[in-house]
Amino acid sequence: MIKAVFFDLDNTLYDNSLQVRVAREKALKAMIDSGLPSDIESARKKLSEIVGDKGSNYQNHFNELVKALCPENNIKIVAAGVVAYHDAKKDHLIPYSDAIHTLLNLRERGYQLGIITNGVPVKQWEKIIRLGLKDFFHTVVIAENPGDYKPNTRPYITASSDIDIRVEESLMVGDRLETDILGAKTAGMKTAHLLRPIKTERTNGKTPEADYRISCLNDLLRIL
Amino acid sequence: MIKAVFFDLDNTLYDNSLQVRVAREKALKAMIDSGLPSDIESARKKLSEIVGDKGSNYQNHFNELVKALCPENNIKIVAAGVVAYHDAKKDHLIPYSDAIHTLLNLRERGYQLGIITNGVPVKQWEKIIRLGLKDFFHTVVIAENPGDYKPNTRPYITASSDIDIRVEESLMVGDRLETDILGAKTAGMKTAHLLRPIKTERTNGKTPEADYRISCLNDLLRIL
Repeated sequence: MIKAVFFDLDNTLYDNSLQVRVAREKALKAMIDSGLPSDIESARKKLSEIVGDKGSNYQNHFNELVKALCPENNIKIVAAGVVAYHDAKKDHLIPYSDAIHTLLNLRERGYQLGIITNGVPVKQWEKIIRLGLKDFFHTVVIAENPGDYKPNTRPYITASSDIDIRVEESLMVGDRLETDILGAKTAGMKTAHLLRPIKTERTNGKTPEADYRISCLNDLLRIL
Repeated sequence: MIKAVFFDLDNTLYDNSLQVRVAREKALKAMIDSGLPSDIESARKKLSEIVGDKGSNYQNHFNELVKALCPENNIKIVAAGVVAYHDAKKDHLIPYSDAIHTLLNLRERGYQLGIITNGVPVKQWEKIIRLGLKDFFHTVVIAENPGDYKPNTRPYITASSDIDIRVEESLMVGDRLETDILGAKTAGMKTAHLLRPIKTERTNGKTPEADYRISCLNDLLRIL
């Protein structure tokens, strides 16, 4: 019997991809307004090359972009991009439209709720607070060291023991097969793979199937 | 003849001290609301000890505070403080009420304007942009390496040469004798020491007198 539902955070409870996409677009416009000698198309193309090249966690995408497109590296243009990027990211940090409804319903029905996520603890908590979700969960487990990241089973086991249930008594909900679902299955949880209609996920044949496939968080209310 | 007026940024064009004070207070309240086991008075006292001890540029004041007051270091409480702090800092990043009026008037009267400041370039530019001041200045010089910080004369010489004037043709306006005024005098500029009524600055006898002492930015319109 399922007693607890655990959720991944990024792209499961809110749309991180949309947030980043909008924020990059606003940053490009702000940089062009501040003198970046480029049209939006070329700037977008160059930025996506840089992101592809340096990885999305690299801290200096805009510096690289300005360096590539400006004869003299103009820090004012970089700062214009940074300001627009952060403002847009914050404006778009909102839960998926069905998240609150689903969480409230699950709590009313007596389920314990948790978050299991990878990342820098204070950053992940900042998101949870800004999303307005901080009071919904009985436990939040943030795997801080890359060695403990999902699909490592440690965060799943910690989350279950935090709320005094056995791992088999819980359902893990996440958007990524190779981390969220794989780790949860290995730990012994039931799993629900959130695959929103606009997204596709390529699998490499080695990733497991989830017990359930859902296309929105509300679907959980039907499964449980 | 004075052709250009240079300004320090922090505490000269906006009230950085107030901003930090309000932001810390809001952060303390948010942390107590999130479960920090302390009253506001004790938390304020402890935080000010930590700031005194670690310096104001230390990045983990709230971590230390929570560690000191909570039996178990609770990252959720730290994050609540960080969110409130950043939001309050941004809300209070506004120019002194007479800044825009003074800058506009000086420009109309034909003066070239500049900023000479110490710090991380992209961070200082972020402030200038958020303050709404990015279009007022003919040059912005940010001393990035501590070795070049004011009172080193290098940033003053760079600023003057950027706008093709001799250093003697400029007036430097700043709130700190031992950096803003000392460096400007050494470089050969005229100087105006901004000493707002609510502030006092202790001098150690080695700092110079400025050519002018002003109590608000508007006073510049009288001097020039």
